[in-house]
Amino acid sequence: MRAVDLIRKKRDSGEHSREEVDFLISGYTRGEIPDYQMSAWLMAAWIRGLNGAEIASLTEAMLHSGEVITFPELPRKKVDKHSTGGVGDKTSLILAPIVAAGGLNVPMISGRGLGHTGGTLDKLEAIPGFSTALTLVEFRRVLRECGMALIGQTAEIAPADKKIYALRDVTSTVENVGLICASIMSKKMAEGIDALVLDVKTGSGAFLQKEEDSVCLAELMVETARRMGKKAVALITDMDQPLGRFAGHSHEVIESIEVLKGRGAADLRELSLGLSAWMFYLGERTKSVEEGHALAEKLVASGEALAKFKQGIALQDGDPRVIEDYAILPQAKNHLKIQSSANGFLAATNCMEFGVALAMLGGGREKKEDQIDPGVGLEFHKRVGDRVRAGETLVTIHYNSDVKLPEARRRIAQAYAFSEHSLAPKKLIRRLIGAEVLQ
Amino acid sequence: MRAVDLIRKKRDSGEHSREEVDFLISGYTRGEIPDYQMSAWLMAAWIRGLNGAEIASLTEAMLHSGEVITFPELPRKKVDKHSTGGVGDKTSLILAPIVAAGGLNVPMISGRGLGHTGGTLDKLEAIPGFSTALTLVEFRRVLRECGMALIGQTAEIAPADKKIYALRDVTSTVENVGLICASIMSKKMAEGIDALVLDVKTGSGAFLQKEEDSVCLAELMVETARRMGKKAVALITDMDQPLGRFAGHSHEVIESIEVLKGRGAADLRELSLGLSAWMFYLGERTKSVEEGHALAEKLVASGEALAKFKQGIALQDGDPRVIEDYAILPQAKNHLKIQSSANGFLAATNCMEFGVALAMLGGGREKKEDQIDPGVGLEFHKRVGDRVRAGETLVTIHYNSDVKLPEARRRIAQAYAFSEHSLAPKKLIRRLIGAEVLQ
Repeated sequence: MRAVDLIRKKRDSGEHSREEVDFLISGYTRGEIPDYQMSAWLMAAWIRGLNGAEIASLTEAMLHSGEVITFPELPRKKVDKHSTGGVGDKTSLILAPIVAAGGLNVPMISGRGLGHTGGTLDKLEAIPGFSTALTLVEFRRVLRECGMALIGQTAEIAPADKKIYALRDVTSTVENVGLICASIMSKKMAEGIDALVLDVKTGSGAFLQKEEDSVCLAELMVETARRMGKKAVALITDMDQPLGRFAGHSHEVIESIEVLKGRGAADLRELSLGLSAWMFYLGERTKSVEEGHALAEKLVASGEALAKFKQGIALQDGDPRVIEDYAILPQAKNHLKIQSSANGFLAATNCMEFGVALAMLGGGREKKEDQIDPGVGLEFHKRVGDRVRAGETLVTIHYNSDVKLPEARRRIAQAYAFSEHSLAPKKLIRRLIGAEVLQ
Repeated sequence: MRAVDLIRKKRDSGEHSREEVDFLISGYTRGEIPDYQMSAWLMAAWIRGLNGAEIASLTEAMLHSGEVITFPELPRKKVDKHSTGGVGDKTSLILAPIVAAGGLNVPMISGRGLGHTGGTLDKLEAIPGFSTALTLVEFRRVLRECGMALIGQTAEIAPADKKIYALRDVTSTVENVGLICASIMSKKMAEGIDALVLDVKTGSGAFLQKEEDSVCLAELMVETARRMGKKAVALITDMDQPLGRFAGHSHEVIESIEVLKGRGAADLRELSLGLSAWMFYLGERTKSVEEGHALAEKLVASGEALAKFKQGIALQDGDPRVIEDYAILPQAKNHLKIQSSANGFLAATNCMEFGVALAMLGGGREKKEDQIDPGVGLEFHKRVGDRVRAGETLVTIHYNSDVKLPEARRRIAQAYAFSEHSLAPKKLIRRLIGAEVLQ
């Protein structure tokens, strides 16, 4: 087998066998296939596409390029959730303690924010002392002790994905549902989970803005998980406006704790409990999704989920006092209110602009190397469908440096569209993918 | 400007500006753009295509990556011919002396054979002592003295093409008419010529086997030459069977000399004179192609073209006695006749098989590093349309090593198809591209 022939095959819209995909991925990971051949293949695959069987082969080859964790010592089901990312999406901080408190294990390997999106690891690191850089041995210990552990990708997990992703980033071969699916799933399957709930965002703040693209990716991921013997379901959820009332690291930790205290924004609560319910059901903790929902509500109401979060923070060296005292989180020195100049009903937001503005102010990364300022944040006072009067505050910007403040302010102000009449807001959970097989 | 954005643009079927193409090619030649980005761009360009303006930009950028020869000391027009290659195609050895004898300059930078095709340089090197590795200074001197000079590509000529071709070869991005056009034309335009006649082969022995693909490449090359201010015309010519009666290096030198002596195969003579006629016309030596044809015939009949070839051989350190004494050329020790098992009319040949069989026997290169055995050759006794009786010889194989003889023999025998009825043979010169603008 030769790489040049496999490149030609994909160039000519051919379909790869499992052996061919293995040859490419293992050869590339070992350094036997050079970058310039892999990038030509990636471009051919980007344009010609990969079918379900090829994506499953690619996922497995990338998965087996590194360590695949198993937990023979943990009899209870292992479940996880993956989100494709958006603005204000902090559900992992809420559902992990809920599901762990409910008796399942949540071995969560998360990512960092890039561009307009936030990352779970960055949010957790706003908590003083919190460490996401656990070794696999420590990860296993924390999981055993409290049923949840949240860490970053290690060098042992799917090294092929790490190498290929770096190449895709510089060769414009990122935005392809097949390649995205294999990248996500190879890492998630390495967690040793039994089931996976996928939160695939759609709308102006999502990577895939069109609902049909999000559905396509969701279907591919569900299919890939099932080909690999895992239970999976995907929720297509709204990212046409930020999730919850806050974006920015300290603010999102606080908002997550508020939901665990039974308060917080209704949309964030709805989605966090909805995802938890599916995790309980796929993890066979409950006999139905509805029962899972009731369990999640009960664990919040009883304070058990909040106690679990506190335990998890402490086990990962974070300061558990954060649960009671938000003042120990980094906070921005200044704030600025952006008022509406229009009268009417909030019709839509260009949600990505909020994420970009936040990153500009230091509350996100424009480049991988950038340091995050966790105190920076945006507070959203209006939701789509709300009546807005001229002079009312739309957004409060919490900031430290004002270098890029004018540009951030301009972006935020321009991200709002109004209408004269009230519009019914879109459903938060738009569609379920893969649920029909399960129920 | 960033390479990653240009890759994305071509991936999404965008059209590059001249500045963008310059940025890519000059950056790659200087080593500032890495192989892995260029190969991703090449694959995107292969699949999405390049339009006429982009191909002209690419050709110019590759041309100006190196030295562009000019001949201020030579007042007469400089003309050249380029062939896309085939089996038995030795017209350069015939037309260069004809056109130089007619008073024009022929500064010919040629290639070597690879795969099933022969190369002009390899054929000339069958002549004892003949050197194709002249420096540009020597090239200029030989051209000044006798009006023709035949050398190989030097490091100074279009280094971008050399680097890009090597990358295309290992990333399955060779067979694309736009990239082929730019590769050929960037080298030909570096020769400092005023006009170019293109011989684009079509049929079973050509790189582009379908006539519509050959026409497409021909149109692109003519258009590109004209955008760069050069006169150009393309002949689409038959490669459904070998050109002339012989393939193999010593044999092709002999056959070329025979044509220059007024003898030789009719098809080879027709095409060599036809190409010469167009060179005379485009080089403004004659007022019409017909007049060019008459001039070419006269120069052969008078022996002036033959004398010019002899002079050219001597100036490039070859042994000029070859003109009278073919025995000084390397010759194979053995020969084997392949007889027809069929009765009927020769209907078609799978011409590429002859080239592959010849290369197997040492009369061509399977890999770039292979040494050529110039004495090895094939003699074709029948042409398409000929009546063939069982037992008549189809091909005589002249060989030295019999290691691959059975396989070569099998390929040759299977390359013939017969019919019960006589078929009109296809025209040798199928079409003219770009002539309507000129006449």
